[in-house]
Amino acid sequence: MADGQGRAHRYAVIMAGGIGSRFWPQSRRRLPKQLLAINGRHTLLQDTARRLRGAVRPTNILVVAPRELVVPIRRQLATLPRANVLVEPSARGTAACLAFAVAQIARRDPQALVAVLAADHVIADVAGFRRSLDTAFEIAASERSLVTFGIRPTAAETGFGYIEVGAAVRRRAPRVYWAARFVEKPDAPTAQSFLASGRHLWNSGMFVWRADVFLDAVRRHAPRIARVVDGFARRGGAVAARRAYARLPPLPVDVAVMERAERVAVVAATFDWSDVGSWAAMPGLWGTDAAGNATRGNALLLECRGTVVYGGTRLLAVLGVDDLIIVDSPDAVLVCPRSRAQDVRRVVAALARGRGRHLC
Amino acid sequence: MADGQGRAHRYAVIMAGGIGSRFWPQSRRRLPKQLLAINGRHTLLQDTARRLRGAVRPTNILVVAPRELVVPIRRQLATLPRANVLVEPSARGTAACLAFAVAQIARRDPQALVAVLAADHVIADVAGFRRSLDTAFEIAASERSLVTFGIRPTAAETGFGYIEVGAAVRRRAPRVYWAARFVEKPDAPTAQSFLASGRHLWNSGMFVWRADVFLDAVRRHAPRIARVVDGFARRGGAVAARRAYARLPPLPVDVAVMERAERVAVVAATFDWSDVGSWAAMPGLWGTDAAGNATRGNALLLECRGTVVYGGTRLLAVLGVDDLIIVDSPDAVLVCPRSRAQDVRRVVAALARGRGRHLC
Repeated sequence: MADGQGRAHRYAVIMAGGIGSRFWPQSRRRLPKQLLAINGRHTLLQDTARRLRGAVRPTNILVVAPRELVVPIRRQLATLPRANVLVEPSARGTAACLAFAVAQIARRDPQALVAVLAADHVIADVAGFRRSLDTAFEIAASERSLVTFGIRPTAAETGFGYIEVGAAVRRRAPRVYWAARFVEKPDAPTAQSFLASGRHLWNSGMFVWRADVFLDAVRRHAPRIARVVDGFARRGGAVAARRAYARLPPLPVDVAVMERAERVAVVAATFDWSDVGSWAAMPGLWGTDAAGNATRGNALLLECRGTVVYGGTRLLAVLGVDDLIIVDSPDAVLVCPRSRAQDVRRVVAALARGRGRHLC
Repeated sequence: MADGQGRAHRYAVIMAGGIGSRFWPQSRRRLPKQLLAINGRHTLLQDTARRLRGAVRPTNILVVAPRELVVPIRRQLATLPRANVLVEPSARGTAACLAFAVAQIARRDPQALVAVLAADHVIADVAGFRRSLDTAFEIAASERSLVTFGIRPTAAETGFGYIEVGAAVRRRAPRVYWAARFVEKPDAPTAQSFLASGRHLWNSGMFVWRADVFLDAVRRHAPRIARVVDGFARRGGAVAARRAYARLPPLPVDVAVMERAERVAVVAATFDWSDVGSWAAMPGLWGTDAAGNATRGNALLLECRGTVVYGGTRLLAVLGVDDLIIVDSPDAVLVCPRSRAQDVRRVVAALARGRGRHLC
């Protein structure tokens, strides 16, 4: 594929939904994690778009998000055409969301090569990402396969899905394999064996495919989703399609499509990657001091170890604690152990009962 | 002593200095602990004054404090004559401070019976306090002794001075003893033996004495202080006296006078008492929930134990921690273990180097 011609066909869909409840109190319903500058000067969404600069034309970058996030997203990505921010009909999982978004691209360009990215991933090595992305675009075009990015595991994570890799797709591209098997979040011993095997990669949730190849796979493996999405293209069918969409069972694209598809290639990423799952991920992103503390903003730590502090306008003064997470926000402060970072959702759930003002 | 006549001679000096640095971030240089409503509707100072209602006339209650606290003190104790708030010449310990204050009372009434109270103690049992106070006034009048209040220890505290009690002062007043010995803050095994002995009481730092008896003791045991304080009474001597006062070695009245005086009586208090030494004292004052948490203000605790939370305008959301102290304030939040409550001073010291705005 000639590079010049190829680039014109390249698209990206950035999935920008999700409420980021584990990032409360910074993350709010109307300004969730992906719209926060939690890792630097730009928001995670902005970083995601910037990572595509030169690889995908701004006019070919679509963002799909719930209606209430459209305004802040347009503000954050001012160079994107306004119409490129798609409103997700309702939150019914990534399978339906991507079928919906890719179908819109396919109407313009059925052979579009579409990279699917999450708005809340952090990748520092942009050059490495771009090399892997180029490889994935090429494989998606030449092999007509669904392509996924696999991340070399650095720990026996039980919070991620894994992909077992099989044979190399091409002799010349040693980091591209056929996917042998998708495995949902494993238990700890299984995760340990995956880490040791060298043949299991984390499923990053980033994909590249040709629009028609993906929609064909949806038609075959998730026909109900395909039918509903087709409805949006029918003249006057949008209202009924929206209603049908809302009744879809919420399914991740991995489960509904990728696991069932025949030809799935895996590009083993050479770049760093974090899904920024919780405040506990921050030491890996921000770096730490000699005592393992990771801090941002207005903070004073005395004799602390392994503590994550995100200061806001107020000073967070922390003395003699180990392995805590402390996060300031204009109307609320969170304190919990790092080991409970996942359970910040429970705080959010508790606040939903009567103190919802702290969630908005 | 006829009660009617006695009451007219009764005075109180409330010592309202101190910066309460262990109560940062609530306690500030211009609004320290004693001026905060840390334990309820009234400030600790207001509670101290209210505790004297009916026992000491408002015109006979003096408050002595550093200059910068005079305005808030007058505001908090609006029923006191303005002149009753004395400015401490400088912070040179309680011995000099009390000699200075009592000398002013003595000029009006040499035989005044003066109760000395700290502005930052908490006593819930006001009736019990008043009975002990009456006893102390009577002993101070009839025995012409310095009287101190001893608190029955409930723990082997190493942070308090102790008084070893000797013989009963009167057969009819079984809770009044002659002081056999003052002991400075003991080490842990000594404190343990004191607790077991039944003959050692905590030195509360509250006293009652006749003005002339106390000033005579100062003259004898702390002559340098006596000379300096006399200087204030000399016409035109205030400036020199103030300068001399500032050069006094800072000494507590216990060390400079009480330990050395011959006739010191101890009234064993029947009331509860807390010197509210740090945030760690709050569970004892506020009460706790079933998990031992003590909270005030805007707080949400999930699966916490033994944790002290003082919420302000913001919500403090705390998940899964044990034995922490978390305190909100408009410009700073403190987080530290309960076991480090004394070391909040170190936070204050650290802030003094470059972030003094958080101390004011």
